[in-house]
Amino acid sequence: MAAVNKPVNNGVNVDALLAAREALKAAPEAAEFTWRASCKWLNGTHSRSTVDSYHGLGQEQKHRTQFSFEADHPEVFASEDNGATPVELVLVGLASCLTAGVAAVAQNRGIQLRSVEAKLEGKMNLYGILGIDSDVRNGYDGIKVTFKIDADASKKDIEALVAQSQKRSAVYDIVTNPTNVTVEVL
Amino acid sequence: MAAVNKPVNNGVNVDALLAAREALKAAPEAAEFTWRASCKWLNGTHSRSTVDSYHGLGQEQKHRTQFSFEADHPEVFASEDNGATPVELVLVGLASCLTAGVAAVAQNRGIQLRSVEAKLEGKMNLYGILGIDSDVRNGYDGIKVTFKIDADASKKDIEALVAQSQKRSAVYDIVTNPTNVTVEVL
Repeated sequence: MAAVNKPVNNGVNVDALLAAREALKAAPEAAEFTWRASCKWLNGTHSRSTVDSYHGLGQEQKHRTQFSFEADHPEVFASEDNGATPVELVLVGLASCLTAGVAAVAQNRGIQLRSVEAKLEGKMNLYGILGIDSDVRNGYDGIKVTFKIDADASKKDIEALVAQSQKRSAVYDIVTNPTNVTVEVL
Repeated sequence: MAAVNKPVNNGVNVDALLAAREALKAAPEAAEFTWRASCKWLNGTHSRSTVDSYHGLGQEQKHRTQFSFEADHPEVFASEDNGATPVELVLVGLASCLTAGVAAVAQNRGIQLRSVEAKLEGKMNLYGILGIDSDVRNGYDGIKVTFKIDADASKKDIEALVAQSQKRSAVYDIVTNPTNVTVEVL
């Protein structure tokens, strides 16, 4: 049997993305997006957040369905562990952003992915959040991301994929660079 | 009927937290935590992340159950919208961190909470992630958090609660200050 030259399909519609890129160049206001989340306190450190609508392409948009997330602190912090901790949710955001980027870049470069796995670890000294030592930050000392990728490509090309995903990742930017946060009480 | 002087109960065990604070002062190595997430690519920009184990108090720890999160890009990005976007997950992390902090600080200050709601908005210009303009960042231009809190306290005391929660929030620190992220490919 002759070898079949199967087209690369990672499930990313790169043609549509490239067309959107051209369309947005001509309509800058459509590129202004607002993402939202709402959070309700349930009890103790337990909360439920929902993600539902956003603004983009010049109008209000809705997700296909509402997404809901429970967060809590673990039992070792005298809490009920009813959900992931907020800092783990940040790791999930970073992991999913870099992973989506790997798939999109692979599609654009004609690389067929078979599997992509990322493991993330963030180290944190509790002396920060507990207010024991003001020289210790509240957040992560650092985050380590380890990718394991099976794809029709050399190690070097896979590393280049991951590097390009980092370069275009929104969450990588949010975590590695400062973002202004304003907090208001109604 | 006589007024009943009900003790404040926001569901946060402040005594246990203060005891833990003292115990950790005497055992600095127990305060070194590692939080983790694992992410598997499913198809396109769709991934599933899980949160399960962490390290702290000098040993491996497990959440009561594994938490799982689906992330995806929306249909306006030619994706299937099978989950929240990674940048919305960051908003959820920030919202839940500040909300847990409000509850813990309120408990410590003897303020009874009745309800706490937070609405978050992050603005983003897609010219960054699409690589149209290298002067536009990939992440949020800024994030606005709006709290609506019903509690047995003055507006001023409620604002002070929120300010103290910000001051001790791990995710607020991660978002507003730079965090080093290293990415490795196995």
